[in-house]
Order: sequence, then C-alpha cells, then structure tokens
Amino acid sequence: MQSYSKLNNWRGQTPLFPRIFGHEASGIVESVGEGVEGLEVGDHVLPVFTGECGDCAHCKSEESNMCDLLRINTDRGVMLSDEKPRFSINGTPINHFVGTSTFSEYTVIHSGCLAKINPLAPLDIVCILSCGITTGLGATLNVAKPKKGSSVAIFGLGAVGLAAAEGARISGASRIIGVDRNPKRFEEAKKFGVNEFVNPKDHDKPVQEVIAEMTNGGADRSIECTGNINAMISAFECVHDGWGVAVLVGVPNKDAVFMTKPINLLNERTLKGTFFGNYKPRTDLPSVVEMYMSKKLEVEKFITHRVPFSEINKAFDYMIRGEGLRCIVSMEE
Amino acid sequence: MQSYSKLNNWRGQTPLFPRIFGHEASGIVESVGEGVEGLEVGDHVLPVFTGECGDCAHCKSEESNMCDLLRINTDRGVMLSDEKPRFSINGTPINHFVGTSTFSEYTVIHSGCLAKINPLAPLDIVCILSCGITTGLGATLNVAKPKKGSSVAIFGLGAVGLAAAEGARISGASRIIGVDRNPKRFEEAKKFGVNEFVNPKDHDKPVQEVIAEMTNGGADRSIECTGNINAMISAFECVHDGWGVAVLVGVPNKDAVFMTKPINLLNERTLKGTFFGNYKPRTDLPSVVEMYMSKKLEVEKFITHRVPFSEINKAFDYMIRGEGLRCIVSMEE
Repeated sequence: MQSYSKLNNWRGQTPLFPRIFGHEASGIVESVGEGVEGLEVGDHVLPVFTGECGDCAHCKSEESNMCDLLRINTDRGVMLSDEKPRFSINGTPINHFVGTSTFSEYTVIHSGCLAKINPLAPLDIVCILSCGITTGLGATLNVAKPKKGSSVAIFGLGAVGLAAAEGARISGASRIIGVDRNPKRFEEAKKFGVNEFVNPKDHDKPVQEVIAEMTNGGADRSIECTGNINAMISAFECVHDGWGVAVLVGVPNKDAVFMTKPINLLNERTLKGTFFGNYKPRTDLPSVVEMYMSKKLEVEKFITHRVPFSEINKAFDYMIRGEGLRCIVSMEE
Repeated sequence: MQSYSKLNNWRGQTPLFPRIFGHEASGIVESVGEGVEGLEVGDHVLPVFTGECGDCAHCKSEESNMCDLLRINTDRGVMLSDEKPRFSINGTPINHFVGTSTFSEYTVIHSGCLAKINPLAPLDIVCILSCGITTGLGATLNVAKPKKGSSVAIFGLGAVGLAAAEGARISGASRIIGVDRNPKRFEEAKKFGVNEFVNPKDHDKPVQEVIAEMTNGGADRSIECTGNINAMISAFECVHDGWGVAVLVGVPNKDAVFMTKPINLLNERTLKGTFFGNYKPRTDLPSVVEMYMSKKLEVEKFITHRVPFSEINKAFDYMIRGEGLRCIVSMEE
C-alpha cells in the first residue's frame, strides 16, 4: 500500500518506541488476509485511525460511530488478532500507531479501519479526508446541521475549523463567523466561506457576549475546534436560546472541566460532542469522497504544501511553525 | 372563566402583593377583548404561564417555544397592553401572576397565553395539562425522543418526573429507571411505567456509575426533573457514549454551576435543556389534550386529590407534606 500522509498526532502520545507514525492517508490494497471480506487487491482505500467492526452496539446503532472493537487506541502498538506488530527492523519489533502507521510504503491494517473508495478519486488529494477534514466537516453536516440562511460561529480556524466552515458553506449558512486569536488566519479563512471575524483579544468582554450582540441574541450554531476549555464554554454560551446548538470537536487537556450555569441549558440550548464528525469510517467515508468528486466539497484548498517522503522533516517544520493547512507527503518519490 | 387550579409556584417568588396566584388550570371564555382573533365566547381553553405571540423569532422558529413577548415573567403583575392589573378590591389594585391568576372564578388573560382545546375534553381533568405534566411529557416526547425498546432514566419521581416516565411508556421504552432518594415514591411510579428503581442513598458510588453498570454502559436517554445540580450532572453522565441524550427539566438554585469533564461530551453524548417540554402553548397544547382523548396519554392517574375552592388550604397542605401528585381545586363548589 502506498500512502500520502499527514503529520499531526505524533506529539503527546504515550511513549511506545520504536514506532511508525502516520494516520491521515490513502493507499491501494496490495494483499488481503484470510477471512477478510469486502476488500480486494487493487481497491483504493482510506485508512482510518478508528474503525468499524460492524458487530458491536455502536456499529449497530445509527447514532454512533464509536466502535467498541476498533475505537482509537493510542496505547496499542500491535495487531488485534495476535497482539503482535507486523513491522520489524533487524529482528526488533516496531510498534504500529492507531492501527494505521502510514509513514511507510507498506503497512498492515485491520480491514475494519479501511474505507473502500471510488477508484477514480485522486489519492494524493482525498488522502486528507481520512481524519481532521472529515471531522470538522461532519461536526457541521452531521451534528450541528445548520439550516440554509443561518449563522454559524466557528471557534479556531485551523484545518479542522476551516473544514467545519466548509460544512457551513455547503449547508448554505449565510453568516459564518470565524473566531481566532490569530488574525493571520482570517484572510485564508475567507476561501472557506468565513465572512465575519472575531478576535477575542480585540474585546474587553467575553467573546460569547460579542457574538450575541452581532447576531441578535446568539448564533444559530457553533462549532468548537480548538480544545481550549474557555473556548468550549464560550462556544456553548454564544448560541441563541430556544434553538442554539453547540458542537464540541477540540480535545482539551484531561484536567479541564466544562462549567456553565444550568439556565444556559434550560433556555433550550443543546450541547453535543462529536468524534470523527459522527461519520462511520467504512460506511460513510466513501460518500465524503463522492462529495469531493461531485465538486460539492472543495478539498484542494486545504492542501498548501507537498513534499516527497525523503523531506518529511520539512513537513514537520511547516506544522510546527503553523504554516499552511495540510502538507501532502508522497511515498513514491 | 372558571378554573380548576393546581397549587405550586407560590413559594420563592418575588414579593408582589396583593396578588392572585394560580396557573395550572382550565376554563371557558366568558368574553373576548377588542382585536383578539381565534377565540370566541364559549371556547374551552387552557391558560398557560408562558405564551405564544406568533410574531417573534422564537414563535417563528420551528425549534423554540420561548416567545419573546409572552415568555414567563414572575415579576410582572399587570397586563401587557396598558401595564395595569384587571383585579382590584375596594379600589386597591391586585397583581396578576404569570399572566394567569387562576385561583379566581374569573380572570383576564392575554389571548397568546390561552390554548383553545377540544370542547369535549373534561375540564376538571385536562386542567393539569397546562404546566408540569406537559413539561415532563414533552421533555421525553419532544426532546429526549427515546426509541422503542430503549432505556430511559428518570431523575425525580414527582409529578413532572412521572410525566416524563409516561412519555417514555408512550414511546415504548422497555426499561424505565426511576431515580429518587425517597423510596415511598417507587410504588406509585409503577403506574407510570417505571419498572426499575435506584435510590442513590443505597449505593456508595455515584448513581451514574450504578446506572452504567445496570445498562451495559449507560442509559439511552435520561430526564432530570429535580433541579438538584448534582442530579443534573449524574443525569448527564449516566447516558451511554455514542448516542446518549440527557434532558434537563428541573430548575436549580441560581448559584448552581453545571460541571463535567469535556470527554463526557466528546464521546458523543448530548445535553439539552427544555422549557415547557418544548411545546408551543397555543399550537401544540390542543394535541396534548387529544392524546388524552384518544387514551394514549393517561391523565387521571396524576389526580390524587380533589377539594372545593373553599378548602384550598387543604390542597396546600397535601403539597407541603408531599402527599399525592395533583389536587384539583374546583372553583364551582
């Protein structure tokens, strides 16, 4: 399997070395293990850091994508079947990473973590649909579900937040309000439909009050994509009473506590969290690729850099410096 | 207008005396003011403590019932049109209460706070559909929306909680778990479909953990009807990851703060609050009365006492002692 990989998620992990990182990718099936159904040599696939076994209560529920068997596990470095890794170097086993390990020309992946996609889709573009972009997009399309003509506040204008904005644009939201402490992000965000901007640093009152004033009582929907606990609270409190829905995407520090006055809930606001945009990896990812193929979803604008695998460290540097959105790493060059 | 009234809500109000209390009632229109549309002398109506003007953003939204003009206001003792009360005694004005003041043989009510109902419905039964019962019922039917065969945890087995259970019974939930610190309530709750009971005092771990163990990971839905902040947190944390929905109904102390770890949200739980069960008073209450008329909704079992108006203090005593669920006060006797 070849893969074009994205580079986050290598920081803050439980140490488990040696290990092959990489999880946002695309590839072609080179061989299929015993008992695997629904995949054949030559299929084009997106590997996903979380999976869909098809048999657990979550997979059987229409409402959940949090598979009991294959849900993301950053601590596991082995295959589920025999608890052994498939990588080694000079006899030393090398750990897998979230079941994908796509910083590699070949990898071995549980079939429940592979979405079979349209073979006409360009792998070096749709590879970025296997994690963050789909997460942000689904947070809007599947969870917040803004109506045509509505207002949507997006907290955090990184790639996930911009994907949430892309979802709002596709939904026909008329006001897409970007909230970020870094004003450099505002220009780029316009490409994703963001048409109003709030920098919390420009105001001496809480950003939820600023948004409530801009929107005659509150945004219809909000999507929180920073993981900052104060942004999470603001994102919830900025939505309109009666119908406002706030969706949390960003993952905060484990000691953070979400706090709000109960009246903010009792006044008919809804607070929801999402994981991978509520998409079931195998069932739903092919349709996200089709959204790109039909030109409804614009994927190219997320791709700001490309490097060959031999220059992967450049890609890490772009990420660390906050330059661009997604850097495609080509394994072929 | 005659009315059969229920008796809560007279404690903890902003002092505004003299005042005529009473808000959960039924009656017949005796006269109609200038410019009022949609109501005629002789119409059977339920007065409601909150209203529906039909013109504001909330009334125009399919998702909200929190009318800007007529939303509950416990501090107002006058009519909206001229800011004067319609009651007096020996020349001294008497204040209205939440726009209803139904502890009176005749009252004057804004037409936006009157739901015209089926004239065949018995007023001395459906009177209790104008506040708490409808609130609990709607919290389940309109907001939590449990599926057939699902599990629903109800926190607080007073009349509102039992109405939420009645909604779960109507929805076909197979496990209706009642949570209350008073085990005396368990026997009566069986009539409302509650078929499992948890007394938090019987356990040395948080009730959300007890419920998670009983339900293989969490209840599908929960409804919080106590207003106790710890119960609110437990009600949220007791629902299943992936699909659980918790609905808050009870109104807590104004200084209370809702607190939870963000991961409880990010694992795809939903937290919502509701007001009057998300029913629009004028548009939707007639259909609740029809649910009773078609024997889908069982209302009689909520009525445990009846007294003539001359003995209203007995009804207050029942309430203070926690005896029974609803006492009908007949204004005719």
